[in-house]
Amino acid sequence: MNNFQYHNPVRILFGKGQIAQLSKQIPAEAKVMITYGGGSIFKNGVYEQVKTALKAHQIVEFGGIEANPTYETLMQAVALGRAEHVDFLLAVGGGSVLDGTKFIAAAIPFTGEDAWQIVGNRAKITTALPLGSVLTLPATGSEMNYYAVISRKETQEKKGLGNPLVYPKFSILDPETTFSLPPRQIANGIADAFTHVMEQYMTYPVRAEMQDRMAEAVLLTLIDEGPKMMASPTDYDAAANVMWAATMALNGLLAAGVPTDWATHQIGHELTALHGIDHARTLAAVLPHLLEIKKDTKREKLIQYAKRVWQLSGTDDELVAGAIQKTADFYESLGIPTKASAYPIGEETVREVVKRFTERGMNFGERADITPEVVGEILELSLS
Amino acid sequence: MNNFQYHNPVRILFGKGQIAQLSKQIPAEAKVMITYGGGSIFKNGVYEQVKTALKAHQIVEFGGIEANPTYETLMQAVALGRAEHVDFLLAVGGGSVLDGTKFIAAAIPFTGEDAWQIVGNRAKITTALPLGSVLTLPATGSEMNYYAVISRKETQEKKGLGNPLVYPKFSILDPETTFSLPPRQIANGIADAFTHVMEQYMTYPVRAEMQDRMAEAVLLTLIDEGPKMMASPTDYDAAANVMWAATMALNGLLAAGVPTDWATHQIGHELTALHGIDHARTLAAVLPHLLEIKKDTKREKLIQYAKRVWQLSGTDDELVAGAIQKTADFYESLGIPTKASAYPIGEETVREVVKRFTERGMNFGERADITPEVVGEILELSLS
Repeated sequence: MNNFQYHNPVRILFGKGQIAQLSKQIPAEAKVMITYGGGSIFKNGVYEQVKTALKAHQIVEFGGIEANPTYETLMQAVALGRAEHVDFLLAVGGGSVLDGTKFIAAAIPFTGEDAWQIVGNRAKITTALPLGSVLTLPATGSEMNYYAVISRKETQEKKGLGNPLVYPKFSILDPETTFSLPPRQIANGIADAFTHVMEQYMTYPVRAEMQDRMAEAVLLTLIDEGPKMMASPTDYDAAANVMWAATMALNGLLAAGVPTDWATHQIGHELTALHGIDHARTLAAVLPHLLEIKKDTKREKLIQYAKRVWQLSGTDDELVAGAIQKTADFYESLGIPTKASAYPIGEETVREVVKRFTERGMNFGERADITPEVVGEILELSLS
Repeated sequence: MNNFQYHNPVRILFGKGQIAQLSKQIPAEAKVMITYGGGSIFKNGVYEQVKTALKAHQIVEFGGIEANPTYETLMQAVALGRAEHVDFLLAVGGGSVLDGTKFIAAAIPFTGEDAWQIVGNRAKITTALPLGSVLTLPATGSEMNYYAVISRKETQEKKGLGNPLVYPKFSILDPETTFSLPPRQIANGIADAFTHVMEQYMTYPVRAEMQDRMAEAVLLTLIDEGPKMMASPTDYDAAANVMWAATMALNGLLAAGVPTDWATHQIGHELTALHGIDHARTLAAVLPHLLEIKKDTKREKLIQYAKRVWQLSGTDDELVAGAIQKTADFYESLGIPTKASAYPIGEETVREVVKRFTERGMNFGERADITPEVVGEILELSLS
């Protein structure tokens, strides 16, 4: 097991009716900026619940944060927050709203010249506004971590930031808020959470049995409960298990003390940046092919995963092949294609992605062996 | 799944050499009281490592905190801490030192007349000194929770306290500090952690699949790695997995959103209070018999546990019987008896424990159906 530090101070309020607890979580004197996305919170009753809970608070609102939140949109929220002197941010929505709000929290008090430098952690931030969240879409885990991924339209970039200063003070997870989600978003959420676990688990063994067993616990939960949530979106317990599993998938516990990969996300981000493909769908179009190309270096973990998660038996080679096939099958069972050829992606995209990885001048993956050339091979296999 | 709140701000520093990080975790100007037990930290080098790490800090020391820390001893530490105006406590040891230090942290600033009222949460505390820990014995989980169990010699009582004010600010877990533990303490630690999971898992299903899978992950880790640590106390990875599993067993995650039992602990505490039997050994003498007597109300979870944790197959009745047998076998495999008859316990003890439960005027267990009469039945079965 590798050395690690683990510290996660986010308070989770989980379950039916928890939005009513909001006012106790935010200082009474705070001027709160509520941030949200395209307006689904007006249809599912969440907006009303939030407004009722915060009826004694001063409120400012900023809507319209898009999927893959953009710097351009978020800087409008920063301007509003500064003009209104808000002192608490409340993200109401899914991972994009949460990620965007983390950037806003860091950017409002930022005194540097170019707030885009916060993204990619190129500018050091020393303070951020406090934020909380009401999560309405289980997927990204952003509700219990300090990461955010922000896009920039102007340059077709998509990059991450991470800083403990933007940990939410609290996140409210009421599974009932997911009941009206479109099937595509439920599927994307399950696939996203599943891939998060794989990025932290499907590497090489360091005899971190506790972490491996926990990662397998999250995978098994998503595999058991995900299809139930897809089939019956108002099945409370299915939604609750998927929601809590998605949070556990990326709250730092699974990565503590083990090597991690994240190459699938790096490649996927480029496909979203260039083609606007849903984040989770880019992951499904990359991971099975990455596993195929890296099946020798990931062999031991693929075999363990085949046995423990998919209950497969057979020769080691059969287990490896079965593990990769089951992974692809799981995405497909959610209605998510696992081939880049399902999208208007061609050789030009492969060349552009490889070029971008070459420009970054670093390799990815748990052994830093996902070179730009390997990225090209993975995408070619996905296109084939 | 039940509603829950989860909030655990303890910073974990895990791995080889992490004690050297101590000085960064404690304010430079703090006057630190180091608390410890019977002196094993002088033999295993931990004391030296701590003193070296804190060479720039002002230090006061209080040693001699016993297993099942007593109010009588701890009040001496409170007096010292007050006289020396210490403003940070550092527990160096196992769960007893940690639990005792939590009490000291609450008692030093306590202004009420009778500090014993802090135990059992009968007196409300509004502040506590900050504390951190260097854990040397994986067992109780005290390093990442806000609970403590304190004994009182005068009245032969053993009671719990719990308050977020006594969460450690940080806990340092270096598996190498366990290398010189006596086999009995390793066995006790594994048994204690195993029982903690069972108290939160072996109840009735509420379709909390994520929590069940995590509980099973901890059990499987203890079952796989515990015997390896027993066989080779200097096997770093075995110690690391047991240590992290023991922390995960009682840091709040497994209990979030599920019913919990804790009757085994309540009964066990009385056996320790009356006979001074090691805490973990009392649990092993109670749990298998409690499961036998409550096997109908715990039936569904016993079957799930038999299949998922012990990979048993057979009829439901066979699975239930096998699950209880495997539980007893696991304790016995650690060298821990599962019968109260292994100790100088007789009918008088049963009568006294039943009397104490009757005086408390409440039932225990996840269905509040462990009445004083049932407590008597469990102990009789253990004695038979």
